[in-house]
Amino acid sequence: MAVTKFAHHILGNVSRHLRVAYRFSYSTMSASDDEYLGAMVRAIIPPLSFSQYKGQCGRIGVVGGCKEYTGAPYFAAISLLKVGADLSHVFCTEGAAPVIKSYSPELIVHPILDKSDATDELKEWIQKMHALVIGPGLGRDPKLFENVKVVLNEATERDLPLVIDADGVYFLTLDPSLIQNYTRAILTPNAPEFKRLYSAVMGEEPPTGDAQQSTKDLSLALGNVTIVRKGPEDIISNGEHVLIGNAEGSPRRCGGQGDLLSGSMGVFAHWAHNALNQTSNQELQVYGPTMAAAYAASTLTRECSRQAFFHHGRSMTTSDMIDKIHHSFERLFSD
Amino acid sequence: MAVTKFAHHILGNVSRHLRVAYRFSYSTMSASDDEYLGAMVRAIIPPLSFSQYKGQCGRIGVVGGCKEYTGAPYFAAISLLKVGADLSHVFCTEGAAPVIKSYSPELIVHPILDKSDATDELKEWIQKMHALVIGPGLGRDPKLFENVKVVLNEATERDLPLVIDADGVYFLTLDPSLIQNYTRAILTPNAPEFKRLYSAVMGEEPPTGDAQQSTKDLSLALGNVTIVRKGPEDIISNGEHVLIGNAEGSPRRCGGQGDLLSGSMGVFAHWAHNALNQTSNQELQVYGPTMAAAYAASTLTRECSRQAFFHHGRSMTTSDMIDKIHHSFERLFSD
Repeated sequence: MAVTKFAHHILGNVSRHLRVAYRFSYSTMSASDDEYLGAMVRAIIPPLSFSQYKGQCGRIGVVGGCKEYTGAPYFAAISLLKVGADLSHVFCTEGAAPVIKSYSPELIVHPILDKSDATDELKEWIQKMHALVIGPGLGRDPKLFENVKVVLNEATERDLPLVIDADGVYFLTLDPSLIQNYTRAILTPNAPEFKRLYSAVMGEEPPTGDAQQSTKDLSLALGNVTIVRKGPEDIISNGEHVLIGNAEGSPRRCGGQGDLLSGSMGVFAHWAHNALNQTSNQELQVYGPTMAAAYAASTLTRECSRQAFFHHGRSMTTSDMIDKIHHSFERLFSD
Repeated sequence: MAVTKFAHHILGNVSRHLRVAYRFSYSTMSASDDEYLGAMVRAIIPPLSFSQYKGQCGRIGVVGGCKEYTGAPYFAAISLLKVGADLSHVFCTEGAAPVIKSYSPELIVHPILDKSDATDELKEWIQKMHALVIGPGLGRDPKLFENVKVVLNEATERDLPLVIDADGVYFLTLDPSLIQNYTRAILTPNAPEFKRLYSAVMGEEPPTGDAQQSTKDLSLALGNVTIVRKGPEDIISNGEHVLIGNAEGSPRRCGGQGDLLSGSMGVFAHWAHNALNQTSNQELQVYGPTMAAAYAASTLTRECSRQAFFHHGRSMTTSDMIDKIHHSFERLFSD
């Protein structure tokens, strides 16, 4: 904190770009840093206008949902809609589809992920998406992974922003080259997922100690794919910069919170890539759209958790957090 | 506005019919126009009375619901019920039926639309309906289109009011002669659907520029089938007159809003045709029941959107709008 304030004093007249680099090279966060980063998030959020048409705020797809898991893709898909996307699609197995559909009529659910000849149908739908969230409730069935490979190829060919979470990260751990150098991807491993991915890419376990450095190293080794290493603080790095998502959350660790994170990150990623050439916000230029999206989603998810915990305490579940998206978004990001 | 007020002054003593024609030939809307049109809508709404029996306020069918889409027919079917119909039927595929049923016990759902020998069963049910909404979540499977053709034939033979939306419009684009001269139909294309339908009927793309004129032209070419061209303003024409649905709505463009529009239009269409010989309201006589129903549904849907956006902001989804049907209806149309 003291370092940061001193830096602001000394560097008061040089460009904000330099200041930003200085501040975050020390990874210290202060109230004024939060302000700059809040402004960065506000700069990626598209203003709502009466002349817009359906789809302009985002058609986002969630790839996941299998025999065991149906809640995770639902949480991701409903969250991105409540953050502000216009259309939310889920690509899941045939058996999971009726259940996911029944959670909410707001979702468009495609029972396609375990089909053996789904390539053309998958490609046709992926072409219509603005961004994808791959992994919530995906499971580890090799048969599904064949179709996930089709999705990933089509998405990277079309330069779609990608968020890859949970068993999507496991899928990449099997062959990290699939995502190598694709800088529009954000991977969101938790502690064990990070360890496995790091080992697969670097050939050794992550060193104990400087978690920020090892996160940065992994991102760099993957060709600047953005990593969000989830934990008490979310460490976000694109191999060049590091941001820390450490907004106040809650001590509750019920399942599904990561799906709110990845879902909201999907729509923020779409917005951030769109905004890049439409705003002069300097933080966005420095950190880039993937880090901005990751920071926005981390901050929002933590605020949802804080508000939901305040009301529901130990009984809080992820659905309670989703109910807080509107008020959290307003509190954090409205002008 | 100035033109309208001047017109009212000059023409104060001539018939309202003439004034209406004058006002809308200029397509200017003023507070007093809204009043006249509000009175028109109130004139089609059947008074509730304790002596009525089940079904009198409408048995309305929604034709749609397939592998991908289950939310759309649900939104249409629950909306028409909450606008005031007594019974809401959905005709969908076998696979979609359990999901649509699970959204609400209020709906009667027929898993019949992908059956290969459904003609008799379909006809039997259609005979019991007062109006149909064809298209929400219909999809584009040619197998279903065979059954939709059966539905359409039976409905037109029985003079049922029809609202045709979404992939129902796509279905008609393949063969516009199916709806030619059926003046109890209302088609509700959005921008791309209008373009495709116009091209199919007129043999050329719609001219840029006067959107009201091209909407009127298309309606006339179809033999005075009413067109609701959805957009920032809804342009409503029966080939002779034009009404503009431009009530305040919201800038949110989440999927499903069109289903609230088409569903509510279905019950308004039933009411409007019933009211035609029971009221002396002159606007209803001038514009006719299809335009009155379209205007009512446009105004109601926009008010639902306005109220829901006020409470939910960017997190607003179509379910939030449906929750506002009661208060919107009261605010707009109660005496």
